[in-house]
Amino acid sequence: MKAIRIFGSIPGIYEGTTFRNRIEVSLSKVHSPLQAGISGSQKEGADSIVVSGGYEDDEDYGDVIIYTGHGGRNIDSGKQVTDQELVRGNLALALNCQNGLPVRVIRGAHDKSIFAPEEGYRYDGLFRVEEYWKEKGKHGFYVWRFKLRKIDYSINPRGQEFHEEAEEYVKAKRVETRIQRIIRETSLSNKVKVLYDFKCQVCDTSILTNIGAYVEAAHIKPLGAPHDGPDTLDNLICLCPNHHVMFDFGGFSILQDFNLIGIEGKLKVNANHKIKREFLQYHFNHFYDEKNRIP
Amino acid sequence: MKAIRIFGSIPGIYEGTTFRNRIEVSLSKVHSPLQAGISGSQKEGADSIVVSGGYEDDEDYGDVIIYTGHGGRNIDSGKQVTDQELVRGNLALALNCQNGLPVRVIRGAHDKSIFAPEEGYRYDGLFRVEEYWKEKGKHGFYVWRFKLRKIDYSINPRGQEFHEEAEEYVKAKRVETRIQRIIRETSLSNKVKVLYDFKCQVCDTSILTNIGAYVEAAHIKPLGAPHDGPDTLDNLICLCPNHHVMFDFGGFSILQDFNLIGIEGKLKVNANHKIKREFLQYHFNHFYDEKNRIP
Repeated sequence: MKAIRIFGSIPGIYEGTTFRNRIEVSLSKVHSPLQAGISGSQKEGADSIVVSGGYEDDEDYGDVIIYTGHGGRNIDSGKQVTDQELVRGNLALALNCQNGLPVRVIRGAHDKSIFAPEEGYRYDGLFRVEEYWKEKGKHGFYVWRFKLRKIDYSINPRGQEFHEEAEEYVKAKRVETRIQRIIRETSLSNKVKVLYDFKCQVCDTSILTNIGAYVEAAHIKPLGAPHDGPDTLDNLICLCPNHHVMFDFGGFSILQDFNLIGIEGKLKVNANHKIKREFLQYHFNHFYDEKNRIP
Repeated sequence: MKAIRIFGSIPGIYEGTTFRNRIEVSLSKVHSPLQAGISGSQKEGADSIVVSGGYEDDEDYGDVIIYTGHGGRNIDSGKQVTDQELVRGNLALALNCQNGLPVRVIRGAHDKSIFAPEEGYRYDGLFRVEEYWKEKGKHGFYVWRFKLRKIDYSINPRGQEFHEEAEEYVKAKRVETRIQRIIRETSLSNKVKVLYDFKCQVCDTSILTNIGAYVEAAHIKPLGAPHDGPDTLDNLICLCPNHHVMFDFGGFSILQDFNLIGIEGKLKVNANHKIKREFLQYHFNHFYDEKNRIP
């Protein structure tokens, strides 16, 4: 009989619960697999992960964790020997990001992290997968990285919903979560929209709502850590929601001559709009991943 | 000299600050106009509103306010005598919703509301315009309604950003806010996506990202108060992000025979997918507003 995969809290297992070993963790259902760091499926998403410092590239900041995906390591040495692909557990975590599913985080003892328990394992609550991207890891091979942010349901009403919904799931056998697509609105955003007359630079579309034209300003190199792209006109393009989703999730990227890769076409660029080429390169390096696209 | 319109907190004016009259309110800059309930522009959005129970249809629940737009009232009787239009202050508030701008709320004394001050006016902080729609008011004419939700920046990190950004605005003379487009992801959402093979029911588009096909499940009658649409398959359709934005913001609606109004075309409906006609009617009545669309 296939067990139901629970996204959200496990009833009766509170944040801070500690476990002596992976067998105890598994029996509690907070993270079922005995060895794998990511519990999930390529169709549903990841329900839990263990952060135990196994990867040299993980970074733990407490409420924010930069988690490295799996694959590409040599079995004996544990060292990265080939590029990671966006498959299996990595694909599962990426689905959490696209579909807004929460993931349970279990930290394992590790002397390099001040947030790790002193011994054994500890359930540390629900996290959201805010974004994912690839980058060259310490050994020179591409790894996939996932930025996780803690959902604090003790003070955040939105988090509370996750909690209640997870409880509800147990009764109704369904998952109920939310995606938040966060779009920054600045006077600069408005400037880039006006520059392109509220039309998408890829397809010329302007969405007509009941109050006029709608289009979105997209940052090429994302704002916020660890990318820290600037909020400047040379890092902004004007896209319809469809091409914005596609661009953010690496469905296409933009080459130095503004030709598109991943889809046909060329970015329309106004002569007064100086786009910094290094930001395009950054997007291409970190978000575009042709080989994992389903044609 | 044109004053800068500040979206966010006014430095030095803390939540809970009281004022004896509209002149004091105006001098504080928390709400500049002496008479108008909405301060804003049709291009920038609304920076502040006064909630004083002037409209018979306003509803104040504390952290949530259902605010009624202006226009259509008889000057002498104050009664609603024609339909309100999505122009002037109403359009400004709708822009806040689309662009994620915060609005300052000032409550005036009113004996019908337990959240109103006993006398004079009180600044009650920043609110987000979560959604807007039209409905028949108590006098049988259409009014525009705006659902405002308080941004609690004392405990909500996202709200904190609003606060900091507002401070920053004063220095950098720019506004920095966030939009949150909230999409619910449920197993039902997944069901409707699978039913349509991850293609938009309006345009057949499927967004290809680096992990596969992306499409969104849209509720016809929105979830949450005051609409309280159900989270059921007969209230869900499968749309690309472009048509989802357009549908949510009333750029088009769907007639009983599935023909579209506002744009050309017909909704593609699978024979196994029973869409409840009353939900379509609800969307048409509350969100579609052809006369305000810019062609």
